[in-house]
Amino acid sequence: MSEPIDLLVHSAGQLCLVPPHGGPQRGAALGDLGLIADGAVAVADGRVVAAGPSAELRARFDAATALDAGGRCVLPGFVDPHTHIPWMGDRAGEFEQRLGGATYMEIMAAGGGIMSTVRQTRAATVAELVADNLPRLARLLRYGTTSVEAKTGYGLETAAELRQLDAIMALHDSQPVEITPTFLPAHAIPAEYAGDTDGYVRYLIEDTLPAGAAWMRARGLTLFCDVFCEEGVFDVDQTRRILEAAAALGYRLKVHADEFAGLGGTRLAVELGATSADHLVSTPEADIAALGRGQTVAVGLPGTPFGLAHRDYTPAKAILAAGGALALATDCNPGTCWCESMQMVIALACRYMGLTQAQALVAATLNAAFAIGRGDQVGSLTPGYQGDLLILDVADYRQLGYRFGVNLVRTVVKRGQVVAENTF
Amino acid sequence: MSEPIDLLVHSAGQLCLVPPHGGPQRGAALGDLGLIADGAVAVADGRVVAAGPSAELRARFDAATALDAGGRCVLPGFVDPHTHIPWMGDRAGEFEQRLGGATYMEIMAAGGGIMSTVRQTRAATVAELVADNLPRLARLLRYGTTSVEAKTGYGLETAAELRQLDAIMALHDSQPVEITPTFLPAHAIPAEYAGDTDGYVRYLIEDTLPAGAAWMRARGLTLFCDVFCEEGVFDVDQTRRILEAAAALGYRLKVHADEFAGLGGTRLAVELGATSADHLVSTPEADIAALGRGQTVAVGLPGTPFGLAHRDYTPAKAILAAGGALALATDCNPGTCWCESMQMVIALACRYMGLTQAQALVAATLNAAFAIGRGDQVGSLTPGYQGDLLILDVADYRQLGYRFGVNLVRTVVKRGQVVAENTF
Repeated sequence: MSEPIDLLVHSAGQLCLVPPHGGPQRGAALGDLGLIADGAVAVADGRVVAAGPSAELRARFDAATALDAGGRCVLPGFVDPHTHIPWMGDRAGEFEQRLGGATYMEIMAAGGGIMSTVRQTRAATVAELVADNLPRLARLLRYGTTSVEAKTGYGLETAAELRQLDAIMALHDSQPVEITPTFLPAHAIPAEYAGDTDGYVRYLIEDTLPAGAAWMRARGLTLFCDVFCEEGVFDVDQTRRILEAAAALGYRLKVHADEFAGLGGTRLAVELGATSADHLVSTPEADIAALGRGQTVAVGLPGTPFGLAHRDYTPAKAILAAGGALALATDCNPGTCWCESMQMVIALACRYMGLTQAQALVAATLNAAFAIGRGDQVGSLTPGYQGDLLILDVADYRQLGYRFGVNLVRTVVKRGQVVAENTF
Repeated sequence: MSEPIDLLVHSAGQLCLVPPHGGPQRGAALGDLGLIADGAVAVADGRVVAAGPSAELRARFDAATALDAGGRCVLPGFVDPHTHIPWMGDRAGEFEQRLGGATYMEIMAAGGGIMSTVRQTRAATVAELVADNLPRLARLLRYGTTSVEAKTGYGLETAAELRQLDAIMALHDSQPVEITPTFLPAHAIPAEYAGDTDGYVRYLIEDTLPAGAAWMRARGLTLFCDVFCEEGVFDVDQTRRILEAAAALGYRLKVHADEFAGLGGTRLAVELGATSADHLVSTPEADIAALGRGQTVAVGLPGTPFGLAHRDYTPAKAILAAGGALALATDCNPGTCWCESMQMVIALACRYMGLTQAQALVAATLNAAFAIGRGDQVGSLTPGYQGDLLILDVADYRQLGYRFGVNLVRTVVKRGQVVAENTF
């Protein structure tokens, strides 16, 4: 009486279910992998239909494709909930300058930094943006990321921001990694509004955000709207005005908060019911406490302080002690952190945020999915979730984080289909 | 009048020659890449016969194989002059303990740490050592390392140390990465000699070192002899006794110095004319000055403080200011730093040792070759050197270090043969 299914992955030495806890795994409960020894997972029509002991599932299902994990570890595909894909150009020369002592904010104040990326991204067509960014998504996929968030924010004018949205959706349609789009015209102050941040905020509220809202209605999508709340960028009051206008237009909310200065962006995110607050390096204690009471997911981006050779990282232990929900992301971008690998992020989180491998793994899968509003769809191998999974090249999930700088993912499966196989 | 050759790699946007300076690149002169725009390199009988402009070399040579680099960057294969391959087992569980606050020295004092690796390595046959470590070398190769140093030191008794040497040579013979062997029975104090380090030193001098010397005579090889000079391991006097005995037996010398405590191991290495002194995190100023006057290459291992989540790294700028020769290595080992990627080491050296990308690249190629006594053979694309080279997936060498956590090497060539191609 075998039930027909599309895919059975069996003989996983460890199958990591990563069960939801009626939401993300919060506070001290973070790190529940739901490990099944000699496990298997069955996928039909792109979704997990069962996960359990190999012997049981092999008897129960008749799979069109069977993958023998050979004792290796199987876990959900990584979800990367914060990237700045797509962009044009690179800033390898600026990195060289930083090695000479220039700070990120100094380079930005001198018109370099993000503005050089903005100039190149504004000049690109949608087709050029797609061609230039496809290799980034291919690399993300090979390193195990099956769902990713991607932001605009290198246009900083309505038409160029909409081109970035079009490029994001074209990228989504042209390769296996699913992309959740975020609208971030409030990423920096464009040269046209230098010294007049309030003028740019008015332009965003009157022109850019309504145009993005029309874009999403035309496609039947809901966008996130995100703001870079930071000294020299948008202050808390400006951030509030943008986000309130965005909420009224139907956007869901995100905030770049406390990357360098603790201005109150995290508290504001919780107050406004933002889906996530991201960076959180200089977050005041009161704001950490707010995370424990609210529904906003805290997203740590340890690749960024690492990329900048800074010493301070997201205070994960304090966030967990407060009962917060913590996720991890790459922040993949050309200025502060060009890294496509969630495995690298896990290695950094273990060392500099004090997470165990199990905590980092949940933060990089289930909790990361909640940080982009998809916690009921991806990031877990619980039945009903998408069949997005990885077969590692190793038997023990604890090798993630412990080993670093290389790729430990062997096979990547998206909605029940093998989409990448790495050779070692 | 075309000259026949085996391989021509042409159309490199940047060809990095990495020229020797009558030895390693020292002090302020470190970072001379000898860049050639639109460059090519010609290889015959495994050696570089010419490097120069593509147009010139394409006219001059008739190549059996031509590789079009398509504007990408071409550079010498990485040389990794300090690893602890081969070993058995892993210590992912110990890493989890360290995340809970235990220090490396505490774990070692409690009989864990290196002793768990020693127990597993002692129990292995040569064939088991080879089978278990081949994947490590395959990974090194895919990440661009074409020559590597490999140490014994998990045997800690004569027969087991010789088995590790046999395994190293079997590994050398069975895959493309060339291996330079180092004898390190003075890596730790085995349980049999607990509390009697001097007794173990006598055993080494009377039994193990002579046996290793006989091993090398039988094979016509010269081994390096290395000592872990550190608090709780071998003090400076014990290190001196071992190294002087080794020198008298015909070994060349290396020292693990100043990883945690600055005992004087670096000064001793310079005094004894050691080929390299490695780690150098807590090196006293006087010892740094000695490096500037001597011939010993300083080997920074930034993966190790990173692996341990420590904050202190090799003081590269002080070493260069003193006129020292600096190299980089992975220290690939199961306890403190399981990382096969010299690209990751370059990313760490840029951020935490203050090197520019160009300095790090020379330290990871030419200077690394001098750190294992092979600076006249590998680490440069100057004519006469081995045809060991990489075609990157990017056009600008400055993307190394800037980007991190992923593999930017596309094609690996060893002695003129393509030995690895990565898919992106």
